[in-house]
Parts: sequence; C-alpha cells; structure tokens
Amino acid sequence: MTHRAPVTVACVQLAPVIGDALESVARIDAGVTEAAQRGAQIVVVPELANTGYMFENAGEVRGAAQALDGPYVSHLIQMAGSLGIVIASGFAELGADDSVYNAAVIVDGSGLLASYRKAHLWNTEKEVFTAGGQRPPVVDTQYGRLGLMICYDLEFPEWVRMVALEGAELLCAPVNWPRYPSPEGERPGEVVRVQADASVNRMYIAAADRVGRERGQDWLGGTVIVDTDGYPVTALELGEAHVALARLDLGLAHDKAVSPLNDVHADRRTELY
Amino acid sequence: MTHRAPVTVACVQLAPVIGDALESVARIDAGVTEAAQRGAQIVVVPELANTGYMFENAGEVRGAAQALDGPYVSHLIQMAGSLGIVIASGFAELGADDSVYNAAVIVDGSGLLASYRKAHLWNTEKEVFTAGGQRPPVVDTQYGRLGLMICYDLEFPEWVRMVALEGAELLCAPVNWPRYPSPEGERPGEVVRVQADASVNRMYIAAADRVGRERGQDWLGGTVIVDTDGYPVTALELGEAHVALARLDLGLAHDKAVSPLNDVHADRRTELY
Repeated sequence: MTHRAPVTVACVQLAPVIGDALESVARIDAGVTEAAQRGAQIVVVPELANTGYMFENAGEVRGAAQALDGPYVSHLIQMAGSLGIVIASGFAELGADDSVYNAAVIVDGSGLLASYRKAHLWNTEKEVFTAGGQRPPVVDTQYGRLGLMICYDLEFPEWVRMVALEGAELLCAPVNWPRYPSPEGERPGEVVRVQADASVNRMYIAAADRVGRERGQDWLGGTVIVDTDGYPVTALELGEAHVALARLDLGLAHDKAVSPLNDVHADRRTELY
Repeated sequence: MTHRAPVTVACVQLAPVIGDALESVARIDAGVTEAAQRGAQIVVVPELANTGYMFENAGEVRGAAQALDGPYVSHLIQMAGSLGIVIASGFAELGADDSVYNAAVIVDGSGLLASYRKAHLWNTEKEVFTAGGQRPPVVDTQYGRLGLMICYDLEFPEWVRMVALEGAELLCAPVNWPRYPSPEGERPGEVVRVQADASVNRMYIAAADRVGRERGQDWLGGTVIVDTDGYPVTALELGEAHVALARLDLGLAHDKAVSPLNDVHADRRTELY
C-alpha cells in the first residue's frame, strides 16, 4: 500500500446559463476560486460547463463551441496557473475537422495536460455532437494520476476499467445528470453506478454535476466524490449549487487488494472475456 | 417493450451448518418450500448452501463435494418437480476430473438445466477449489431466461455483461458475502455493485446470501432482488434468515432503452474496448 500526502479534490456544482457564456464562466470562476481558497488542488467542473446543455439545434452548439486552444481552455489554464491547481472541465469543442464534440480537458498552469471527446453520447447529443473515437486519457499531474471521461461514459464499465488499468488514481468526471424520479429513499442510480465503478477498480472518482432548470429540463445536482471502496466521501446536496471537497490519499488507489488473496485487477479472467 | 405475465422470484436467506449436510439441506428444504407456498416460481439458494463455507482444508471440502448427478442436485430436481418451480443453488462439486469446484446449478422437475463453476474465486477458496474455465450459462426455463454466476463473479462487470448480452432476463446469483464494516448509513458495497450490474444491463438480479456465524466468520445476509433500473425490490434484512420475494415482469429485461436514442447494449463502443 502506497501512502502519499493527501490532496484536496473539489467538485464545483453549478448552473451554467445557456446562451450566456460570460455569466457561465463567471460562475465557474467563482466556484473554482472558492474551491482553491478552501484548499482544493484538483478541481472538477461539470460537463459543458461554459455553454449549458439544452441546445435547440446543431447550429446553436456549433456557435458555442471553441477550439481546444480557444478562449475557454486558455482561460482555464490561466486560472489554474494563478491558483496553483489542476482543473478538469467539460466544454463544447470545435475540432480541427470542423466537427463538434462534447469534450473535456485537464489543465494546469503549464497548459493543456489532456483532452477527451465523449465516446458514449446521451440522447439528443447524438444529433448535435460527433462521438469521440479515442480512449479516455490518463495523465500524471503534480497532484496525482488522473483519468477523464464524461457523464454517460460512466455507465460503461468497460470504459471505466480502461482508465483504472492504466493506473488512474482519480477519475475526473464532468457530468450533466438529468433529474429522473427515483424510488423513495433510494440514492439516484447515477451515483450508485459511480460507487460501483470506483469499488470494482479501487479508484477514486470525482463526478461534478450541474444544477438548475434549463429549457424545461431539471438537473439532478448529484455531485459526489467516492473513495476506493465506492463509498461517498462528500455529502449529496441534490440540486444545490455548492463546492464539494474531500481530502484523498490518492496513493491508496494503487492497492487493488480486497482480501489476502484477491486483487480486483489481477483477478480478472481476461482469457475468458 | 415486451410485457409478460409477472413471475414470482424468491431468495432463501439461510444459515448452512458446516459439517452437517442433513441439517443444511433441511433448512434449504424449509426455505424453498416456504417460498413456493408463497407463490415463488423461481427460487435462488445461497452459494455452498448444503455444505457451509469455512472449510478447514481442501480435504474437508472434498469430503463434502458431490458430483453433478449426486444426491444434492438430484434432491433439488425432485423438490423442483414436486413444487413445480425452478431452483438455482450453489453447491460444492466434485468434477469428473477429480477437481473440486465452487459450483451452482439451475434445475426444474425435468432435471438439470444449467451448471456453472465459479470463475473468480474469493480469498482462501483459491486454496481449496479449482477455478471454473467456462463462461456463465444462460438458459431458458418455463418461467424465464436465466443467467447464473456466484458471488465474487458479480464484482467483474465483464462477466455480468456476458450473460446480459446473451439475453438473460434474471441473473440468479448464489452468494456468501462476508460481513465487513461499512460507513454509517451506507448500504453494503456488495449490494451497491449488484444494483449497478443490473442497471447498466437493464437485467434483473436475484442475489441469495447466507447468514450466521461460522468458525469465526460473520456473514452479511445481504440478500436482494433488484429491478432493471438497479433499485432493490425487496427489503434488506441484514443477517436475518428469511425468504425474500418479488413479482417481476421479466419481459421488461428485453427493453434496453434508457432514452429515446439510447440503448445500454447498442451504445457500447465495442470497437474501442
């Protein structure tokens, strides 16, 4: 078991304002700054945080999309540098191929560390985004080895397994979880699946969700950080804008043992899968 | 969406008595009979139900193991016939190859419908059992299309995916979950993982757990039946011997849609996994 100095990880749960990038980015700045002031070293921001989600058509999302070296990501790099932190955020990417992607980045003050295009598109995203065709990235940062994927990707254990097998200690997951009814007393299924994703890989996961009502769609606000046993280490504050923080010993993610003779990765029967 | 007449599924949560096969089978008989009397058509019995679990050495488990056509499975077939039900149960199998397996069967009155040898062995099982080398079975029965696997197998989403892709409506899972501490207010991780297994495949799962204390080991008694959304449809009665029943519309397991444009199986990006 490898212990390391704990790092503070934060998720910023906020409501983007569709069609108002300035206000959306102001909310991101406020949340990220609060997180850093409270000690966060790694900060995760929701999916499509600077644009909102409920696009009316492909033209609207194309108009909001930016290049990977465009103003939003450049702004994140600048903010990460001035705060001395690592930021993971979703955004709408206009690719060099002229396609529009539901994308995410990990940056620090030195620049772009990793980028990703969502491979498993949700519902009408299929009508306005091009699906990514690359595996989710895993990247070493000054605060730990981070994986990156987006929302519905988390529902595919095959995808989560990939970043875990590549040694991700913390999976950063910008999400936008639509609010659905769940049975009385039950934790939302999206959170349950994140818990399982973490525990079957003994990897931390930080899922930063959005809140608010946008063009008739209510959002869950199910932001959660879970430990390597799959238990939440932040309180669920469904629907409330807030910053969730947790101190994590990311070194523990290298310990895949679950009994004296079991290791969740080594125990896989890959010859049979 | 394919609706069918609901079927009643039961899990028998009981305490086997290690070293006393007669008493263990008497408890199985009592539980299965109660389940059938209460309307169950499919009854799931725990892992190693007729032998207990905490074997002192390989010799003890070998002494308790039986052939697939031995007295325990024959007894299950007879009981299934007289009650008009399908039974899934764990047992210790002595193979024709003279190896001992942590195994399970699905039977009805016509005989053996499917058998399985646990592929992912837990802890000291590795010292007394040979790991199975075949995929988990999926079999059509008069009450539905059933998959079968055992306990720690459920922690490998790759394994669960297999039976779901082969059309299993209900995954029958005999388990023996050791009791571990979980954080205050948290549902045990074993149950959380079953919930996720079900929901990412939109398949029902019935996990029949054991209870009691055996040679110093306490058992969780976390028996649960979950629906295709991954929510429990039976109450958790941790540690208490009981029969858990649920009426399930197994036809719903053929509906893999989670939005107008999403299907949890068709959405997999198999070319990237």
